[in-house]
Amino acid sequence: MIITFLTDFGLQDDFVGTCHGVIKRISPEAEVIDITHGIPPQRVLQGALVLRNTLPYMPVGVHLAVVDPGVGGSRRALVLRDREGRLYVGPDNGLLLPAAERFGGVVEAHELANPDYALQPVSRTFHGRDLFAPAAAHLANGLDLGELGPPLAAETLARLDIPQPAIGDGQAEAAVLYIDRYGNVQLNLDREDMEQVEISPGTRVELECMGERYYAVAARTFADARAGDILLYEDSYRNIAIAINGGNAAQMLAARAGDRIALRRVL
Amino acid sequence: MIITFLTDFGLQDDFVGTCHGVIKRISPEAEVIDITHGIPPQRVLQGALVLRNTLPYMPVGVHLAVVDPGVGGSRRALVLRDREGRLYVGPDNGLLLPAAERFGGVVEAHELANPDYALQPVSRTFHGRDLFAPAAAHLANGLDLGELGPPLAAETLARLDIPQPAIGDGQAEAAVLYIDRYGNVQLNLDREDMEQVEISPGTRVELECMGERYYAVAARTFADARAGDILLYEDSYRNIAIAINGGNAAQMLAARAGDRIALRRVL
Amino acid sequence: MIITFLTDFGLQDDFVGTCHGVIKRISPEAEVIDITHGIPPQRVLQGALVLRNTLPYMPVGVHLAVVDPGVGGSRRALVLRDREGRLYVGPDNGLLLPAAERFGGVVEAHELANPDYALQPVSRTFHGRDLFAPAAAHLANGLDLGELGPPLAAETLARLDIPQPAIGDGQAEAAVLYIDRYGNVQLNLDREDMEQVEISPGTRVELECMGERYYAVAARTFADARAGDILLYEDSYRNIAIAINGGNAAQMLAARAGDRIALRRVL
Repeated sequence: MIITFLTDFGLQDDFVGTCHGVIKRISPEAEVIDITHGIPPQRVLQGALVLRNTLPYMPVGVHLAVVDPGVGGSRRALVLRDREGRLYVGPDNGLLLPAAERFGGVVEAHELANPDYALQPVSRTFHGRDLFAPAAAHLANGLDLGELGPPLAAETLARLDIPQPAIGDGQAEAAVLYIDRYGNVQLNLDREDMEQVEISPGTRVELECMGERYYAVAARTFADARAGDILLYEDSYRNIAIAINGGNAAQMLAARAGDRIALRRVL
Repeated sequence: MIITFLTDFGLQDDFVGTCHGVIKRISPEAEVIDITHGIPPQRVLQGALVLRNTLPYMPVGVHLAVVDPGVGGSRRALVLRDREGRLYVGPDNGLLLPAAERFGGVVEAHELANPDYALQPVSRTFHGRDLFAPAAAHLANGLDLGELGPPLAAETLARLDIPQPAIGDGQAEAAVLYIDRYGNVQLNLDREDMEQVEISPGTRVELECMGERYYAVAARTFADARAGDILLYEDSYRNIAIAINGGNAAQMLAARAGDRIALRRVL
Repeated sequence: MIITFLTDFGLQDDFVGTCHGVIKRISPEAEVIDITHGIPPQRVLQGALVLRNTLPYMPVGVHLAVVDPGVGGSRRALVLRDREGRLYVGPDNGLLLPAAERFGGVVEAHELANPDYALQPVSRTFHGRDLFAPAAAHLANGLDLGELGPPLAAETLARLDIPQPAIGDGQAEAAVLYIDRYGNVQLNLDREDMEQVEISPGTRVELECMGERYYAVAARTFADARAGDILLYEDSYRNIAIAINGGNAAQMLAARAGDRIALRRVL
């Protein structure tokens, strides 16, 4: 059985390795795929979007995700099952739902509350190790969801506000969802939004970010733009993104996740 | 057979991946768990403490650890066995002993000296690849410790000085053991030390670090403190640590591993 | 079957984890060894040299490598087989050839052009996920190279210029190939070059880098030099490298990959 694993733990400390050890002690046959542990610390929305984007590329299995600023407080711990049979383990803070909804939505939810399937005593600050990784490993061993705790109604689960763009006449107000290693700036826009504002490959576009204006060009791929050009393209997760051919767009625009960026078609 | 692997190699270069390759060529069935490769370069004490803290969460196996500022010099290369049957491979610089002592202490020790179980020629600067990883892989294949080299008396093994706190009347002089990704500052204090200085959840505490003073509050968990508060809590490895709720305590205090921090109960 | 995996993707984003997922969906039995994902972004030469240096330590398998500044443009996608039976998958930009030539050279080459073995639709910016990882996974399943696309003549494959040193009377003009986590500066020189300029352990050497001059000493290992000394040594991949005992040579010299460094024997 595959367990995929996504966190904001980073790889500098032992947090990820320790969870791998916990899983292997409980489920020696489980195989772990690390989706990423580079979600910026405590950015639940970034974690939720990356999980949603990447799960279609993952084998069906147990999907363990921990971005958990509320650890030790009153937020619940969850196990979910979606319509396609994928299982999810993580905190009840909205992290898991966008992925589950991509696969038909939550059909079963339980609170992780059975102490038999946690490491005792459960620490107040590292539920990844003591609560979530053990639950994922027991699920990989075939444990029934219902053994982990009482059922929850899907409508009681915490939800994130995913920022929505405002689409107008020849312009769009977007938000930065994610910035990757290359400085590419992913927006909450897709191809249909671009069609609505009549931006297509070759269109010149004015960007406004933090009060500064920039000129960009819509392009099919990096190779269609000159070195140094700012370009708008459909990225590999089908979001519209801003890049600089041979450069770092996030640095140039001083853009960070959550910032607003306006796009205007230039006639 | 499980091989756990802890180093200061980082993940930027190929050092870790190359050792994985060496292990898999010798022992295709071995499974490697990377505890962490983010130990700060050449900080043997940090490596020893992380190994000691994390091994209880790891399956019993071969525990390969390399933080080795003395590579190429006269320090010996070791294989150890503890009372619970865990095997350790690494340099004779104190890195392995705190973990082995947690499991009953060293019951068998050998020097890695048999050239049949090393990659020839052994380089002078990368014993992880040429000496330690091959030995771990052969042990995972079931090789007897005694085949790797001559026995060593446990009392000849190099030991680290683990800094000890000074506990007084309502105050403690502690040392910083470790700083994690979130900027949490782990001290060489535990719950018993705190009870001795009569600090318990809710107690106000004055911290003195590098000549500067700060006010903190003892708390059970982050959720018990307000955003921006400095708090003292028992971390997931049962050390007392300093954190800032929603912030980075190490940055605020300008604290680094090895620094001294004084704690005083405020009446 | 082993798939080794080397990229410039970094570990901050999901790129590496997503490719792991893609591989496991196609080839559940494949085992992936991550050589490194820390190649500096888009530095094809660095990637090619690390692949060439590390493959002798890897099991024979499918060797997937992606450092691909030309993604989405007209560069071809390749699968190669070398004389020893290793298979290579990656872009046709020179990344794969230095490794293949270490194992007797390319004996079979095909363009990745069969849509049946790619994820459809193939994105324009993430061929690692959509084209290269699927091809590697199908090869691990035993697919014949010829199924992936039409044969290519080896002499049509793109090649890198690997910088060559200039060796003179008691001096050498070298280039920086690579800088590692410790700040060690790897040069395009080997032991034979050093013998030609009559530099051997104990020889004093003048280095000239970016107009500044430094004194160094040739040494067998770090332990032969005093703390703070600059030393020249043969590194674990048999290149000559510059280090500072207990320090960071790349920082001291302000050296980066591609820089020229002159070495002169001091009489």
